[in-house]
Amino acid sequence: MNTHSTPVASEQLMANAIRVLAMDAVQAANSGHPGAPMGMADVATVLFNRFMNIDPSADKWADRDRFVMSAGHGSMLVYAINHLLGYDDMDMDQLRNFRQMGARTAGHPEYGHAKGIETTTGPLGQGISTAVGMALAERMLNARYGDDLVDHYTYVIAGDGCLMEGISHEAIDMAGHMKLGRLIVLWDDNGITIDGGTDMSTSTDQQARFAASGWHVQGVDGHDPDAVAKAIEAARADDRPSMIACKTIIGFGAPNKQGSHSVHGAPLGDAEIAAAREGMGWDLPPFEMPQEVYDGWHAIAARGRAAREAWVARLAKSDKKDAFRADFAPVDAAALDASINAFKHQISESAPKVATRKSSEMALEVVNGCLPNTVGGSADLTGSNNTKTSGMTPVKSADYSGNYMHYGIREHGMAAAMNGIALHGGLKPYGGTFLAFADYMRGSMRLSALMGVPVAYVLTHDSIGLGEDGPTHQPVETVASLRAMPNMLVFRPADTVETAEAWQIAMTEETTPSALCLSRQNLPTVRTTHSDANLTAKGAYVLRDTDGARDVTLIATGSEVEIAIAAAEALASDGIKAAVVSAPCFELFAKQDAAYHAEVLGDAPRIGIEAAIRQGWDLLLRPEDGFVGMTGFGASAPAPELYRHFGITPEATADLARSLCK
Amino acid sequence: MNTHSTPVASEQLMANAIRVLAMDAVQAANSGHPGAPMGMADVATVLFNRFMNIDPSADKWADRDRFVMSAGHGSMLVYAINHLLGYDDMDMDQLRNFRQMGARTAGHPEYGHAKGIETTTGPLGQGISTAVGMALAERMLNARYGDDLVDHYTYVIAGDGCLMEGISHEAIDMAGHMKLGRLIVLWDDNGITIDGGTDMSTSTDQQARFAASGWHVQGVDGHDPDAVAKAIEAARADDRPSMIACKTIIGFGAPNKQGSHSVHGAPLGDAEIAAAREGMGWDLPPFEMPQEVYDGWHAIAARGRAAREAWVARLAKSDKKDAFRADFAPVDAAALDASINAFKHQISESAPKVATRKSSEMALEVVNGCLPNTVGGSADLTGSNNTKTSGMTPVKSADYSGNYMHYGIREHGMAAAMNGIALHGGLKPYGGTFLAFADYMRGSMRLSALMGVPVAYVLTHDSIGLGEDGPTHQPVETVASLRAMPNMLVFRPADTVETAEAWQIAMTEETTPSALCLSRQNLPTVRTTHSDANLTAKGAYVLRDTDGARDVTLIATGSEVEIAIAAAEALASDGIKAAVVSAPCFELFAKQDAAYHAEVLGDAPRIGIEAAIRQGWDLLLRPEDGFVGMTGFGASAPAPELYRHFGITPEATADLARSLCK
Repeated sequence: MNTHSTPVASEQLMANAIRVLAMDAVQAANSGHPGAPMGMADVATVLFNRFMNIDPSADKWADRDRFVMSAGHGSMLVYAINHLLGYDDMDMDQLRNFRQMGARTAGHPEYGHAKGIETTTGPLGQGISTAVGMALAERMLNARYGDDLVDHYTYVIAGDGCLMEGISHEAIDMAGHMKLGRLIVLWDDNGITIDGGTDMSTSTDQQARFAASGWHVQGVDGHDPDAVAKAIEAARADDRPSMIACKTIIGFGAPNKQGSHSVHGAPLGDAEIAAAREGMGWDLPPFEMPQEVYDGWHAIAARGRAAREAWVARLAKSDKKDAFRADFAPVDAAALDASINAFKHQISESAPKVATRKSSEMALEVVNGCLPNTVGGSADLTGSNNTKTSGMTPVKSADYSGNYMHYGIREHGMAAAMNGIALHGGLKPYGGTFLAFADYMRGSMRLSALMGVPVAYVLTHDSIGLGEDGPTHQPVETVASLRAMPNMLVFRPADTVETAEAWQIAMTEETTPSALCLSRQNLPTVRTTHSDANLTAKGAYVLRDTDGARDVTLIATGSEVEIAIAAAEALASDGIKAAVVSAPCFELFAKQDAAYHAEVLGDAPRIGIEAAIRQGWDLLLRPEDGFVGMTGFGASAPAPELYRHFGITPEATADLARSLCK
Repeated sequence: MNTHSTPVASEQLMANAIRVLAMDAVQAANSGHPGAPMGMADVATVLFNRFMNIDPSADKWADRDRFVMSAGHGSMLVYAINHLLGYDDMDMDQLRNFRQMGARTAGHPEYGHAKGIETTTGPLGQGISTAVGMALAERMLNARYGDDLVDHYTYVIAGDGCLMEGISHEAIDMAGHMKLGRLIVLWDDNGITIDGGTDMSTSTDQQARFAASGWHVQGVDGHDPDAVAKAIEAARADDRPSMIACKTIIGFGAPNKQGSHSVHGAPLGDAEIAAAREGMGWDLPPFEMPQEVYDGWHAIAARGRAAREAWVARLAKSDKKDAFRADFAPVDAAALDASINAFKHQISESAPKVATRKSSEMALEVVNGCLPNTVGGSADLTGSNNTKTSGMTPVKSADYSGNYMHYGIREHGMAAAMNGIALHGGLKPYGGTFLAFADYMRGSMRLSALMGVPVAYVLTHDSIGLGEDGPTHQPVETVASLRAMPNMLVFRPADTVETAEAWQIAMTEETTPSALCLSRQNLPTVRTTHSDANLTAKGAYVLRDTDGARDVTLIATGSEVEIAIAAAEALASDGIKAAVVSAPCFELFAKQDAAYHAEVLGDAPRIGIEAAIRQGWDLLLRPEDGFVGMTGFGASAPAPELYRHFGITPEATADLARSLCK
């Protein structure tokens, strides 16, 4: 380590600043992970000092390099760097208050909490997989706008855990296939996980594994700055995505603890910190930095600012500047509204009987016609999810100008990539799979919700209505499990009009992801009277009112609205007045006021109807109300038989209504 | 193809029988996937005809070879083979009724629906990953009982989708590391997925990828029986797990459609079926088989029966026969009960204040002391999940005699492996991760529930009570999302006594998996009066009763029971009588009768207290009742501050109670 008593602004000093800040902040918090920031300080310093193109005074600059700390537990590396670079929201008090209430310096890097955090990480494997989406967006926008406007790199620091998680396979395979040459992964190859040495649980030759998926691979000593720099140079020059295995010592600089799993996730303790200070020749007390250190890091910021200013000048001169700015701006809601309303009007009149997955395709024809920067896709279920509209062309490694991604059989990787595309900016991603397989990508969906990234998930085959594929493919609890997720809009539209309304909301949302749950089976149009108002935006509304006081209210979602209407008609012939409420989005209904709730739900007995479990219906139903739905897993048979078998029919609903009205 | 008009019992004929049954059954159902069964018919025939050791008359024979159809959409391959082998529950009517209500021949192979189905498949990647657990169990039991009693192979047919899913990485890495030489994966390398050619979405060199993880790899023509046989021979001889890339033509035998994605998941149609019949020289009408075909397949069954009879004789002579039989039999509940009760008695007296993750370790000391065949483990969080009890030793590739798995940072792979261990029989797996990361393994947890496999999930750090790691690590919706899953017991015990009771239930359950949600933070013992009765088995019970009629009922789970008690005590000083109900398992409470529900919940106003969202509480709370909990994601700060910040305190609970009691 550096033995100068008067430090100079060398990379070693700059790296030691990260180490000192990391160990001191973790010690102050009495909580956190010093090992990764200390181990990767040299690599990160070289990366930022010699390569990163960022401007802390303009953190959202579109053409900045992206840096993703996939090993999110090493968050102090990010906070230390962002402080040293001079981000104005990361003063030393933030570091002093690492992991404390209200500080920007959360235990893991949280997108939106502070500038310069490109994505939330912590759940392992998410960072590297999200970065694939960022790197893909970069190439797609480059194909549209050229090198003058879009020409940057995506750098990732990933740990052993990131590479052991399954999602990393999906990401690596996708990146290799798409030849994302501007994606560079720096693997913190320290041989240590929480349980002990990596040799306790893995024997994979990571370089060989990445190479098998078409990556450029190198291995370097992660404490040799010139070797790291040379490897990054080579990585940048290669047209494949690159993985650099950086052999490091975890907790490097802690003389007695480094290289062991004891430095991974616990404070070093005062004695070890003092010894580390001595080894580094670091005289200053905690949370004080030599000016030379700031000088060194601020030079990076100055370089970035100059690059950005040159870019701003290029943008101003570009004949594509309006289109570019529009792509990065919020959606033009008015234009979308007009088109959606015209579509709704036409549908209300023609009243097609189609599956809502088909309705979704029809609505997407309108959406994609209005918005030039949507990116469709599916996890190998394009024809089933109906996600590809006319004129969409595949994104390919030989031609990134397309707007449709064949994500492959990789739901988790798709969801993470969509997060990355959305976070990058300039493009609006949506992607599909079967609703049951939302379980496979729940880790990334949760990050969409937590970060407030407006990704749209197209989830078809949304109940036992998919029929013969059977219980593995039939969601019964999946809608409830998605409704449980904070900040996720879960739509289950009843027909083409509601599906269009759901898309209208999903595409104009700025801070909330959407999940559209869509039927495989055909459904009639129930909204045969046009209204410009987006009724789905209310969450639930009276679809079929009664003449005079209600005897019963039938509340249904999606494919079961048809059943509710049929039941209401059957009840009418018995003189029982049944209102039908369509409830396509519980989260939006929850946001309405008590008066609206009372108006929609009424005082009469209620019956909920959904081909799924009852959990999550307590907003709409009281204990004494009825429910027609599922109580366990489905079965394999044609859909109409399954509906009869599980008693989700107009007859069963009407019978229950009669018993409740007695 | 075979052009004989009078077929002989060749492997080609045996394979063509699979093809014909698959295409006819899919046609009859007008639904299903003919492509994979037809493409892999030759490989499967060679595997069964020359290698498989199974006895259809004793389908649960412990030392049988396991066969897993990971590409579960190719279920007709399994049903055809099992019919031809002579399983007594798979007569031709089952095949005629493929995918129909009540038939054993579900759209995807469902464990428990028919003999000879070793695991449920369909969600891609699950089969290969479950098979890793089976192969691991085989080696672990071999280490205990020797070659005489445990000496079999696990064979898998996997498709492109299985290998693209992230879970396959976790499984492959784990199998390579554990040197599971008796695991042989036959990859249906047909180059086709639903969207089209695999070249649309993947470029991974699968053989190189498997080799990078320590596998023995080969490539063969999947329509050359002798080449396939030779490769399987070589795979069996190698001490590494083996992957054989079988180059096949999807839908082989359908002369006009084979090799295209149109044969993947749709009936071939009458004309193509007729052409296929002609090409195969197959004269018989649908669902009729030449006797030669049955003769060929029955010879496999006869060979298996002889092998089993020899094994039965060896078992009878073995001095380990009692232990072996006990391992495969249900748990001796009486012995476990006695030990658990002694433990509960001691805990009620000593009343330790420990985190329930520690309580779980203490209870597991008792459990592991009673049950010789538990297999512990963790996804690299051993010290945090407290899953390793004293004396447990790691399972290693050099010595499989241990009983603790370091599963690595692979939650999904761990869950699938645990399913495989449990399905194999002879061992009882439990494994841990953080509750928030249940999302990463939900695909496999759902299969535990759907199959009814009694795996125990240890899910620690179960709320904002984990503190500084912040919202990515803090489950707020995860308990609700697990409660949504049918046939899953979700426990959130309040103290060491309830934790022991939860383990008592989890380890004696035969058909339901369990999820134990456990605190990071210390909790007092609330069950200070011993009862032999397992109160957790009631799901909820009155922990603190009132003297006279209740004014309010406070219902809490896990770490919030302490808060409920403190609130009740505060209310008592105001003269408000508050009963406290502990509700460690909603699913078990739901099974109690109405009278018990009324007795526990009472008529007074109720308040639910759980550091999570309200969804799922509608069994316990009415709309007018109160809830103290979370409404969104958590934050990063010390746990006590978070509880105060989010208003989950005795004071807030007491205030709400006062307002409800007015």
